[in-house]
Order: sequence, then C-alpha cells, then structure tokens
Amino acid sequence: MPVPKFEKIALIGIGLIGSSLARVIRREDLAQSIAISTRRPETLARARELRLGDEYHARAGDAVADADLVIVSVPVGASGQVAEAISDVLKPGAIVTDVGSTKASVIRQMAPVLPESVHFIPGHPIAGTEHSGPDAGFADLFDGRWCILTPLPATDEKALQNLTQFWERCGSKVDTMGAEHHDMVLAIVSHLPHLIAYNIVGTADDLETVTKSEVIKYSASGFRDFTRLAASDPTMWRDVCLHNRDAILEMLARFSEDLSALQRAIRWGDGEKLFDLFTRTRAIRRSIIEAGQEVDAPNFGRHAALHPQKSDVE
Amino acid sequence: MPVPKFEKIALIGIGLIGSSLARVIRREDLAQSIAISTRRPETLARARELRLGDEYHARAGDAVADADLVIVSVPVGASGQVAEAISDVLKPGAIVTDVGSTKASVIRQMAPVLPESVHFIPGHPIAGTEHSGPDAGFADLFDGRWCILTPLPATDEKALQNLTQFWERCGSKVDTMGAEHHDMVLAIVSHLPHLIAYNIVGTADDLETVTKSEVIKYSASGFRDFTRLAASDPTMWRDVCLHNRDAILEMLARFSEDLSALQRAIRWGDGEKLFDLFTRTRAIRRSIIEAGQEVDAPNFGRHAALHPQKSDVE
Repeated sequence: MPVPKFEKIALIGIGLIGSSLARVIRREDLAQSIAISTRRPETLARARELRLGDEYHARAGDAVADADLVIVSVPVGASGQVAEAISDVLKPGAIVTDVGSTKASVIRQMAPVLPESVHFIPGHPIAGTEHSGPDAGFADLFDGRWCILTPLPATDEKALQNLTQFWERCGSKVDTMGAEHHDMVLAIVSHLPHLIAYNIVGTADDLETVTKSEVIKYSASGFRDFTRLAASDPTMWRDVCLHNRDAILEMLARFSEDLSALQRAIRWGDGEKLFDLFTRTRAIRRSIIEAGQEVDAPNFGRHAALHPQKSDVE
Repeated sequence: MPVPKFEKIALIGIGLIGSSLARVIRREDLAQSIAISTRRPETLARARELRLGDEYHARAGDAVADADLVIVSVPVGASGQVAEAISDVLKPGAIVTDVGSTKASVIRQMAPVLPESVHFIPGHPIAGTEHSGPDAGFADLFDGRWCILTPLPATDEKALQNLTQFWERCGSKVDTMGAEHHDMVLAIVSHLPHLIAYNIVGTADDLETVTKSEVIKYSASGFRDFTRLAASDPTMWRDVCLHNRDAILEMLARFSEDLSALQRAIRWGDGEKLFDLFTRTRAIRRSIIEAGQEVDAPNFGRHAALHPQKSDVE
C-alpha cells in the first residue's frame, strides 16, 4: 500500500525529536514541504542554518497554515499554549499529533482547544538520546523503536492509518493503547529510571566524604551509566514529572518499598534474599537484547569507542 | 624503569577479572608462567581450553607454590577461605593481592591468616562488564581504568612499587588510599548504582498493571540502561552487599532521603526544585567524558551497533 505523501508537514518545536523528524521526512520524501516553528529565535536560526525545512516561522500559527500534518514536539507543559496558538489556523481535515512523553495531560490540554474539523491523534515515539536541540537530531533515531499512538474514541480510522504509516516510514513500529495505560507504562520504563538517575547523581554530588574528583575517576564502576539519563533535557523532564504525577508517585512508592526490603536484607545479612533478586533480574536484559532493543556487546559496546586503537572483546 | 617480570603469577579465580588478567599478562609478557586455580571443575576445564595459563589446579594451594605474585579474584566472601588454603604454601617474599570490590572486609579476612613473610597489598581494579566467567575476559579490560591499592601501614615500599608497575603494564592508572575510604567511595560510585539497578528491575518485574512484554518493548526509553548493571554476577554482588554493609547502608539512607524530597516536589508541583536538580546533574557527565572514563557519543554509541547498515549520528 503506497504511503500518502503529505503536502505540507508543520513541525512545532525543532529539538531532538522535531529535528530528527525533519531529517527523516526529507530522507524518506514524506512531504512536499516542511514548515518549522519554534519560539526561541536562536533555535529557529539554527534550524535554518541546518536547512531542516522549507519555511521557518516564529509563530506556530504561521507554520500550520495549509499543513495536512502537524507534529507538536515541545515540552508537554507547553502543549496547551501550542494548541491555542494553532487552533484558529488549522486546515480542516489535518492530522494533529504530538510526541510528548505523557499522554493524558496532553489530551487534557489540547483536545478541548482544537477544532472538531481536525484529527487529533496523540503520539509518543519511544526514542531519544541524552542530547537536545536541533543539532542533536538524526534521521535514524526512530529506526526499530516503538511509537505509541493513543487515539481518542472518536478518532477517524483513516487518519489513524495514515499517521501509522507515516511513523512506519520513519522507521518505527507502531502500537496503539489508551492514554492512561501509556502513562502507567512510561512511568515505569522511562520516568522512574530518569528520576532515579537524576536522584543518585544529585546524592553523589552532595557528599562531603567523597570528592567530586573521586566520583568522576571511578565512575566506570557503575555510576557513569546513570549520568547519561541524568544529562537529559531539564525542561522536558520537569514537565514530565509535573504532568504524569500520579503514575510516577505510584511507581516511586513501589520502588521505595522494594528498596526498603533490600535495605533490610543488607542490614540483617540475608544473602539468600539478595542472591534471589540479583539472579531474577538477569533474565530481563536477555529478553530486551533478543527483542532488538539493546546491544549485546558488554558495556553497551562503548569499550571500542574508548579504545579505538585496540581490539574490542578478544 | 624496566618492569620486573614475575617468574610465576598465580591467578586464584578465573572469572571476568582473573581471565582478563591472564590475557593481558600474556600479551604484555609480564610473567614466565601463569598458574590458574579455580574451584569449579567446569571453569578450570574451560580455562584450559582457552589456554589462559601454563598450569591448572583445583586447589589454590597447589597453584601458589613458587609464585612470586598471587592475585586472588574471587567473590569477596571467599577471601578468607582462599587465604587459609594458600597461607602454608606461599613463597616468602611473594606479593599477595586481590581484586575485590570491598577492601576492609578482605583485609579482615586475609591479613590475620597470611604469613608475615609475604607482602599483602589489597587492590581493586575499577573495571568490569556485566558478563562473567573465563570467556568474558579480554586483555583491554583495564585500559585507561583506575586500579586502587589500599596498602597496610607495614607495606613494603618496593613491593608496592612492583605491584603498581604491574597494574600500569596492564593498562591501568594506579591510586592508593585507605581501605575505609575506598569502601566509602565505592559504595557511592559502584555499590549503590548496582543496588538501585537491581531494585528497579525487580520493581518492574513485579508489576501487575504493566506487562513484561511492554517493559521489554519500550525499554529504550530509559529502563534498558539499568538492566546492564542488573545483569551482573549475583554471587559477586551478594558478597559486596554483605561485606560493605555499613557504607552501603549509609549511602542508601542518603539516596532515600533525597528521593523523598524529590517525591515531595513532584507531589506538590514544585517545578523549580525539579528543574534545579535536573540542571545540576548535567555537568558531571561532561566531566566524566572529559576524564576519558565515558564515551561522548549519544546513547553510549550503541545506535551504530543496533543499526550497522545506516549512518550513526548524521
């Protein structure tokens, strides 16, 4: 089935995700033209320098005029403002989607504002890196990653199909689910890991007994893994925390409960309990590697990058 | 200064660290012969198949006879037994060291048992992967990583120098510090990160509202990073928890305290507090990359490994 080429795709926000979309849309020839809008003048100027689109606008409303696909890629806390800025200008029949990491809040912010004449289909590509901004994007970002769409009860089947095919052409595999379930799933697979990473890096940063230089020198023993997630975009993650509060608090409570049990096992020298947990957790990584969502090489394969002259694993 | 070549190095334990040592000792020609001992017959047989040494012994005592360097690479809980098994056979003047992740406990277990005629210098190379066993080792493992030695007050200066040079020839940079301080530093940079990783993977594994298949599919959004540490050797990590109890409990308490504050900020919608923490933690990763202890590529550079046909970051 041929994928419909969009006449004009409007990208509202041109950070890591928006600029990766711009690049893959161009590579796969998914639109006749790309309109880009972002609020910060420096970012817009950079997008222009990188030739990411065909039109560049400071105001989101100007970018969406005549667009048949509008993709909102902004911190989730800004979704409502974007909806208000574009609602009067949207072309009837256009698909409006987003890439936010929380879905119920985005729907609460955008759905009441958008006109009934457009197809609003919230979405979330499960892809990213710890880098941000228009320079950080790359066309392969979505390759082999899942994109979750959370259609509303009234969502038009044909529009959903078009958006699904769009994401597949971007390299993604597409799942659909309810917004509430999405928010619960992401709370455990993404939001809690980021919070925990931010937290442990903060704890290490505050110590008096261990110097910062020691933390840095000996970080290869485990700590450095956490610093990747803890280097993610602060505005994006502040908004995620504020906009998926209930699911995150639920997962945090479970995590803390389990951690207390682990703490107790350590205090009382319960080696069997520790061994059981440490054994059980091994299997899940194997499954993730088998599902093609993770590399098989030890240490994420980074040894080769750190030691390019020598062999990797011999 | 020429590095003294050891006549015979005995490796007690031939897992990831022991077998990496065997490989680098051979590559750098650091010994005339290598004697290997490990308790499990299958592991010893595998070491022989891999031609990791010159002699293979089921009993540690048989391996250390005539050795001038003995390196104990076993789970820290087994250190005392090894010391007892070798103490009567050790050659006077030999250097005895270990690679355990906790130092005070290893000293408590080994120092009283070893004869005064040998030089006991506890050590800990800050290097590893999530894989274990003799097949997991590789000669580059220690390249550019730190090795911490925790000499005792009576340690002979010349023996310390010889061991330092040995580790440098293995590719390491060498630091010395007190055992108590080592245990505190490692509790935050290594032991706590592993515990947290094991814990979050356990929490995700226990959920009823989110299926295991969902955790696996969407793990690229953060969770998969934690599964690497949580796939580490269970016996080794059980022993670390039991043998560095006080420092780990101290770090766990601080981590939990900080997490409670974060939880409160989320509950009360304190965006500023969240933003401040999420901004502060970014800097430390940059320092780790600049120190050569981490790769600069986004996502640990693993994108290229998952998508070998296409470009990495464009």
